[in-house]
Amino acid sequence: MVGRDQAAPPADQLAAMDLTDAVQNHAFSDRVLIRSIVGRPDGGAGLAGQRVRAAGWVRTGREQGKGTFAFLELNDGSCPANLQVIVDAGVAVLSKLVATGTCVVVDGILKVPPEGTRQRIELRVEKVVHIGEVDPAKYPIPKTKLTLEFLRDHLHLRSRTNTIAAIARIRNALAFATHSFFQEHHFLYVHTPILTTSDCEGAGEMFQVTTLISEAEKLEKELIKNPPPSEADIEAARQLVSERGEAVKQLKAAKASKADIAASVAELNKAKESLSKLEERSKLKPGIPQKDGKIDYTQDFFARQAFLTVSGQLQVETYACAVSNVYTFGPTFRAEHSHTSRHLAEFWMVEPEIAFADLQDDMSCAEAYVKYMCKWLLEKCLDDMEFMAKNYDKGCIDRLRMVASTPFVRISYTEAVELLEEAVRGGKKFENEVEWGIDLASEHERYLTEVKFQKPVIVYNYPKGIKAFYMRLNDDLKTVAAMDVLVPKVGELIGGSQREERYDVIRERITEMGLPLEPYEWYLDLRRYGTVKHCGFGLGFERMILFATGIDNIRDVIPFPRYPGRADL
Amino acid sequence: MVGRDQAAPPADQLAAMDLTDAVQNHAFSDRVLIRSIVGRPDGGAGLAGQRVRAAGWVRTGREQGKGTFAFLELNDGSCPANLQVIVDAGVAVLSKLVATGTCVVVDGILKVPPEGTRQRIELRVEKVVHIGEVDPAKYPIPKTKLTLEFLRDHLHLRSRTNTIAAIARIRNALAFATHSFFQEHHFLYVHTPILTTSDCEGAGEMFQVTTLISEAEKLEKELIKNPPPSEADIEAARQLVSERGEAVKQLKAAKASKADIAASVAELNKAKESLSKLEERSKLKPGIPQKDGKIDYTQDFFARQAFLTVSGQLQVETYACAVSNVYTFGPTFRAEHSHTSRHLAEFWMVEPEIAFADLQDDMSCAEAYVKYMCKWLLEKCLDDMEFMAKNYDKGCIDRLRMVASTPFVRISYTEAVELLEEAVRGGKKFENEVEWGIDLASEHERYLTEVKFQKPVIVYNYPKGIKAFYMRLNDDLKTVAAMDVLVPKVGELIGGSQREERYDVIRERITEMGLPLEPYEWYLDLRRYGTVKHCGFGLGFERMILFATGIDNIRDVIPFPRYPGRADL
Repeated sequence: MVGRDQAAPPADQLAAMDLTDAVQNHAFSDRVLIRSIVGRPDGGAGLAGQRVRAAGWVRTGREQGKGTFAFLELNDGSCPANLQVIVDAGVAVLSKLVATGTCVVVDGILKVPPEGTRQRIELRVEKVVHIGEVDPAKYPIPKTKLTLEFLRDHLHLRSRTNTIAAIARIRNALAFATHSFFQEHHFLYVHTPILTTSDCEGAGEMFQVTTLISEAEKLEKELIKNPPPSEADIEAARQLVSERGEAVKQLKAAKASKADIAASVAELNKAKESLSKLEERSKLKPGIPQKDGKIDYTQDFFARQAFLTVSGQLQVETYACAVSNVYTFGPTFRAEHSHTSRHLAEFWMVEPEIAFADLQDDMSCAEAYVKYMCKWLLEKCLDDMEFMAKNYDKGCIDRLRMVASTPFVRISYTEAVELLEEAVRGGKKFENEVEWGIDLASEHERYLTEVKFQKPVIVYNYPKGIKAFYMRLNDDLKTVAAMDVLVPKVGELIGGSQREERYDVIRERITEMGLPLEPYEWYLDLRRYGTVKHCGFGLGFERMILFATGIDNIRDVIPFPRYPGRADL
Repeated sequence: MVGRDQAAPPADQLAAMDLTDAVQNHAFSDRVLIRSIVGRPDGGAGLAGQRVRAAGWVRTGREQGKGTFAFLELNDGSCPANLQVIVDAGVAVLSKLVATGTCVVVDGILKVPPEGTRQRIELRVEKVVHIGEVDPAKYPIPKTKLTLEFLRDHLHLRSRTNTIAAIARIRNALAFATHSFFQEHHFLYVHTPILTTSDCEGAGEMFQVTTLISEAEKLEKELIKNPPPSEADIEAARQLVSERGEAVKQLKAAKASKADIAASVAELNKAKESLSKLEERSKLKPGIPQKDGKIDYTQDFFARQAFLTVSGQLQVETYACAVSNVYTFGPTFRAEHSHTSRHLAEFWMVEPEIAFADLQDDMSCAEAYVKYMCKWLLEKCLDDMEFMAKNYDKGCIDRLRMVASTPFVRISYTEAVELLEEAVRGGKKFENEVEWGIDLASEHERYLTEVKFQKPVIVYNYPKGIKAFYMRLNDDLKTVAAMDVLVPKVGELIGGSQREERYDVIRERITEMGLPLEPYEWYLDLRRYGTVKHCGFGLGFERMILFATGIDNIRDVIPFPRYPGRADL
């Protein structure tokens, strides 16, 4: 039918393909991707007459013509559109095919449907190759409209819905756009560690990683099966050692044969070994090992306390200060008890770090990156974006177009506060009071980007008191070279800064903020030896998906959301 | 000097660029990447006469001509080659520039050096813009040849060495090759969870993630500051409630005014509230919360025990059974106390999952993917591969070429065992005995790929007893549709299988292996509803880097290695 083992061309080349290519557009399987049929500019009409194997899951199915044939809307996840499939009763038991969620593999001929129908092409089935049945009475996600909240209780099946599948494709596109952008600009992708012993911003919000509890549980079980020796057992063993020792002494004093002495010494050693084993076991105590009233972390897996990372920035700086431009893209963690629609315990961050660059460069990079992602979605995911626009957020495509084409406003924090104060004087009410020195609240950020400028805004040079020690102190000694990128719909999308590269200044800042120097010695080394001007930022990847899709709850844009009380699967 | 905000072209387009483009080939900074000068086919000679800003770290520097000028070998991490820089004593204090590790930014003119020198171009400095000094007496990684083992104790500085920088570029290239390969074949990148409550292959080797210990520590501190109420405190509060209750009763009996009764009820409520607060606090106990003699995980962050994932396969199958082809690429964890050169506690895995595909398709995909990565390195990282060939593994480039161009041998496990037995009969000695039913040891795998076939070998259809429950049972009822890809230098690079898609069979297999059904109910749902033939595999990303580079220890091919007793930074 079709050849195997050939690469499928990217979406933007589908238009240029001839029919044979399109039909052979598969992915290590003998089926044809549905997108390579219905995703063509002609909606697949040009493929009429071709024999193909199609496969997917039935979105909707119905028997027609008094049970003489069935219509199936088949989707394989390769695009939001379905392939319409027609099966005659002579080919298969139709009732087994029509339930939503049924998996089918079919061989057939592509035909142009009669005029007046929505489809440009349909598949007339000649043979049903596989049916993965569904009992509609039991299927947890029936065809009826389901809320996103309901779907969160069925994580393992929710990707079978149009919405979660579209989000998966958009998420995939944004991830590859991210890699493409940084690779095109010669940034190296660096895998910073997930497990870290650098407790840099306070352990309170970090997850601890340990084997002490499971080791203690194992030991407890072992001690029940095989109780530790009693004091009497040990005393008896000690007695034996002393007796055997005495025996050796006597043999030696009696000048016994070498062989006799050796045998006696061997007996003594055996007794000693047995005693030391008993003593060792007598020290075993159930529970987590303690020392001086505290948990003894020298017995943990890494011989010290370990946590899940909250950011790869400090670690990736070691690479920026060696191979210049780098970025991370990986999971990060916060053990915050936040039950909001904007927080997750596990989320993905993109963190570039640019050497020989200052805050202006940082803003330029952030702006170019966000624009690149918007253009990418408009070019490669327009069908999914149209789905989101139709079902969730009318304005999402226009928003992408606007951000892709509009220069971002750049204002200092001081200017931002003045604009907010002006708004307050004009009658605008904020829940949080505005004055120089505050950390901008979400309502302030959204006012600036959604109301005042109606476009992305970069706010820079924040008061040093509300920002981290590693941000570069400006000459005014009051502000640091930090910047936040604010966009309509989500507010803060990116936070970044130029890093303090001056050894004396950063040392002073660490001390000033009441942090200990010792854990940062390695970080200070980067300034001690061959220091370099550098900057970077972090983009919350799920925030970017919220921004793009218009979805409201962050739990719906990550495949397996983790939040207080929930970590399904 | 050069414009900003333009994308740098990929390496393979450098040759085609005109000079202006090449000089403008930067990355959000006003410097020029060194690779865009010395990485050109002409070694940069064609750029003579151009003014550029270059930046990087001094690999070696020396004063010449009785201190009248200095030579610096400058490297910025963009390629293995250095840029030769010449600074006259009139331009800067030369002694500040020449120490290894010094960071410099310089403006100058590119010139063709005198005949007889190795370089094709050099930079004559007109102005030194920045110096990040190094005190060579203190610098932890001096110019002398350092062992990889020594460098592991200086993780934060080791990327400044040629070796670790070359590995970083190769690792980056393989990561992007991975994404490019799967994207070209229409696989969706799915982020499977790092935190998991699916304890699928035995908790013994999993890291536990918890906030119970830090919460307990917090509580302990709080209780010291603010001790819990005594029994007497509570008794007194109880007494007060009873008195206030009595007072209300009496007022009601006396038909007192509504206002008086209300005031008295308010007093009673206050007393009740205060009592309930005391009772609440009296329940606080230091230590990890227990219930029925066991740790009470309902009080942990996720209200149950949580672990770090050992594989994203089971979770990603939920997407494969919904949107067909998918892959994961992320960190995975094993809490094994292995001190070998092949094991890490944290490592990266690539796990594609292919719908509507069988074991043959799985092997085809694995083979195409490995070949693609080899070709990618030969095309995009040849300079780094030459560095590895020169310094670590003479044969590494030939190995890549061979694997990229040779069809992989495919033999069944049974055939593999026969070949090994034949070898034993021929005098070959193995430490592990060979007989049908054993799990092939590394020595067996390496014999097959390095000695017998001298090319990659895929072994398939393994005895079911040594493989996981989710692998598809073959019709012989003895073997499962599993496959391993073996390559020279590392042995097993990939392990995969066709998944058991038959509900009754997989249920039976779970039970047969003594596993409980309940935790797998969600996984069984994938077979209950719309089941599909599918397969997948896992590639240990660091193993692939070992294979490519010829480096011996896995701790040197991941930026921040984690293993028993060590998790620096």
